[in-house]
Parts: sequence; structure tokens; C-alpha cells
Amino acid sequence: MNDKELIELFEKSFPFWAQMSSADRETFIRSSHSVSFKKGTNIHDGNECTGIILIKSGSLRLYLLSEDGKEVTLYRLFPGDICILSASCVLQTITFDVFIDSDEDSECVVVGSCAYEDLSLRLPEAKIFALEVAVSRFSDVMWVMQQILFMSMDKRLAIFLLDETAKNGSDTVKLTHEQIARYMGSAREVISRMLKYFASEGIISSSRSEGIKILDKKRLRELTI
Amino acid sequence: MNDKELIELFEKSFPFWAQMSSADRETFIRSSHSVSFKKGTNIHDGNECTGIILIKSGSLRLYLLSEDGKEVTLYRLFPGDICILSASCVLQTITFDVFIDSDEDSECVVVGSCAYEDLSLRLPEAKIFALEVAVSRFSDVMWVMQQILFMSMDKRLAIFLLDETAKNGSDTVKLTHEQIARYMGSAREVISRMLKYFASEGIISSSRSEGIKILDKKRLRELTI
Repeated sequence: MNDKELIELFEKSFPFWAQMSSADRETFIRSSHSVSFKKGTNIHDGNECTGIILIKSGSLRLYLLSEDGKEVTLYRLFPGDICILSASCVLQTITFDVFIDSDEDSECVVVGSCAYEDLSLRLPEAKIFALEVAVSRFSDVMWVMQQILFMSMDKRLAIFLLDETAKNGSDTVKLTHEQIARYMGSAREVISRMLKYFASEGIISSSRSEGIKILDKKRLRELTI
Repeated sequence: MNDKELIELFEKSFPFWAQMSSADRETFIRSSHSVSFKKGTNIHDGNECTGIILIKSGSLRLYLLSEDGKEVTLYRLFPGDICILSASCVLQTITFDVFIDSDEDSECVVVGSCAYEDLSLRLPEAKIFALEVAVSRFSDVMWVMQQILFMSMDKRLAIFLLDETAKNGSDTVKLTHEQIARYMGSAREVISRMLKYFASEGIISSSRSEGIKILDKKRLRELTI
């Protein structure tokens, strides 16, 4: 990625770009680098300060990991999104650790934490932007939490399948039961059982080769109410 | 509460107070009011913008509420704390609703949301402060979420009891099983069963009149590891 492309990406990503001095812009460019992540790569394990990640293509998945290896997906990030929890050193008030994996082959640009932190001291807009991104993720996480705590599994799975088809513009969800379980913070057995029930009701069909096909979207929607 | 006391409280609570113009300070004082809440009063139900709440005495409890009435406590606030989620209109990136109850008889000062929002437009420090308070609560909520998702109930209850005794400086926890269940987002039956187990192991004693008394703090601590 050349400097011109990088500047275009920064202009699009950071609403405060126009307010930065040319010296600060130069520092930002010098402290950034492009990275390609293969699907399934662990990008951040909560310990170090990886930097602020801008997603150009692909997708990242943020999750919690328990000591015994149980995962709960908090949210996923797509092209145009900015990952701030990978730079929790920029936001001292963030005291929890998340794990981040590349969910597909992904192209990203990582902005160094020090450059951002340094800018935040001089430009309040940069600080406000980072905090606002974090707070909007707080909202995402609360949504997940409410789903996990309060919703029955049939409702959660119906919402998940509808979200996936809406995102892909297709009636087929090409994910394994294992993957769905991981995204939903559930167990494969639970998802398989529920999908079998959906299939027996004629709402979906599921096969290893074809994935999950939505047959009756109306009834699936009714389950989400 | 007279203006002098109010100004002292604001000086202590808002790190940007010294940077405010005298006109802004005047607006802040005029848009604030003292409120006493009786124990158990619902202060905020997620719909309206109640304002920023400064806690002078007592305590507030923030929780999620499901459609069928199940509660999960997110965190509690004590004297000196500031409640920002009751003024989610100030932070447009907060899109979830919380419920807030007065957990004891509490004395608070409520700062009007409009005055704060208006100030935030002119003083970035005020905006940053509100966002930082919100993000630090994000950290609290993630901690609760990890406990709920990943920890076994004996460990969670042991942590809860130790936290309570540390907070009160006493070896006795004067809460009903019902209350503990509500704080922990669990059911009374589950808590009662676990406390009975703790009692049978000689770790605690529990009676209606005396509350829960910690007999073996060392073993309770071991459960939290």
C-alpha cells in the first residue's frame, strides 16, 4: 500500500484527519503498516498493545476466552470498521482483555498505539474518537450479553441465521455447526440439536455439502419475536 | 444543599470544573437538583434521559431486565461515583438501556443532561470525561460477563461474599438469599443450595436473623482461585 492509498484510508477512517498537523500526519503514516492475516490467525491475545486496526477486507472476530478454552464471540468487524480494543493501552480505562482472530483472509492496516496515544494528548478529537468507538462496542457487547442471558436458544439461532443471510444476500449459511456454536458462545451439540428441530419443522435444510438453507423465512422470523 | 456545597461536590466530581467558564458553572448549578431516593426506588428505566447522577450517600444498582422480569446486576455505585448511563442521550453511541434502582436510602445530585451535552460541545474535556466514565463501566460489565459465562457458581459466590465483607469491614453479610441471587444474576434456589453446601463444609453459617457469617475465610479464598 503506497502513501497515497494510506492517506485516503486515513481520511475515510479518522474524522479528525483534517485537523491534524502535517507533522502528526507524517508520524501516523510512518507508524502504520499493512498486514495480511490468513483465516483463523490469532491477531491479538489480550496481553500486548497491538495497535489500532483498520479493516480493508475480510473480517475479524473479537471474543472472550475462559481458562478452560470456552469462547464467547463479542462481535465481528468488517471492511471500514476500526478495531480499538486491540489498542487498549490507548484507553487506560479499558481493563479487560479480548482475543481477536482473523475470521477470513483479511487485509488490514495497523496504526501504532504510541503514535495514536501521543496524538490524543494534543488533539482531543482523536481521544474522543477512540473513546466513542469503544463505547459503541460497549453497546454491541451489551446486546450480546442480553441475548446470552435472557433469550432462549431457538430465538437466538433464528436471529443469527437471519443476520447471516441478510449479510450475505443469500438464503444459504455456509458455516459448520461448530462455527455457529463458537459465534454464539454455545456448544456444537446444542446448535446441532436446534438445527435438527428447525429442519424437522421444515424451516431449514442442513447438509454437510450445502450448508444450512433457509426454506421458510417467514416462520424463522416469527421465532425472533 | 446550598450552592457552596454543590460547587464543592462539582469540584470533587468533575476534573474539568476549573476549566469551565463562570457562565457554564452557573448553568450547571441551575440545572442540578438534590434528590433523596428511598431504598428500592426505581430511578431510571432506560427510556428517558434522567441526567448525570452524583452519589453522595447510599448506593445505586444498575441492571439489565429481561421481558419476563429476570434481572442481572451489572454493577453498583457508591458515594463519590458518577452514573453516566442514566444520561445516555449525552453519549449517542450508547444504544442499550439499563435499569437503575436505589439499593439503599440514597442522597444524590442530578445534573441535567442538556446542560452537560451543551458543555461537551464547547469543552472537549467534559466530553472525554463522560466517555471515560462510560468506558470504565464497560470494563466492569465485561468482568461480570466473564463471571457469568465462565465461572462456576461456587467460585462466583465465594468472590461475592469476600467482596461484600471487604466492603463492609465485617465478617457478616446481611443480605437475603433472594438479594444475593439478584446481585449475581442467579436464582434464589441456586444460591440457597450453594450456601447450604458452604455451611455443611463449615465455611459459613447462615441464619435468617444473623445473616451469613464467614467462619473460614481461608477456605473461602481458596475457592476463588
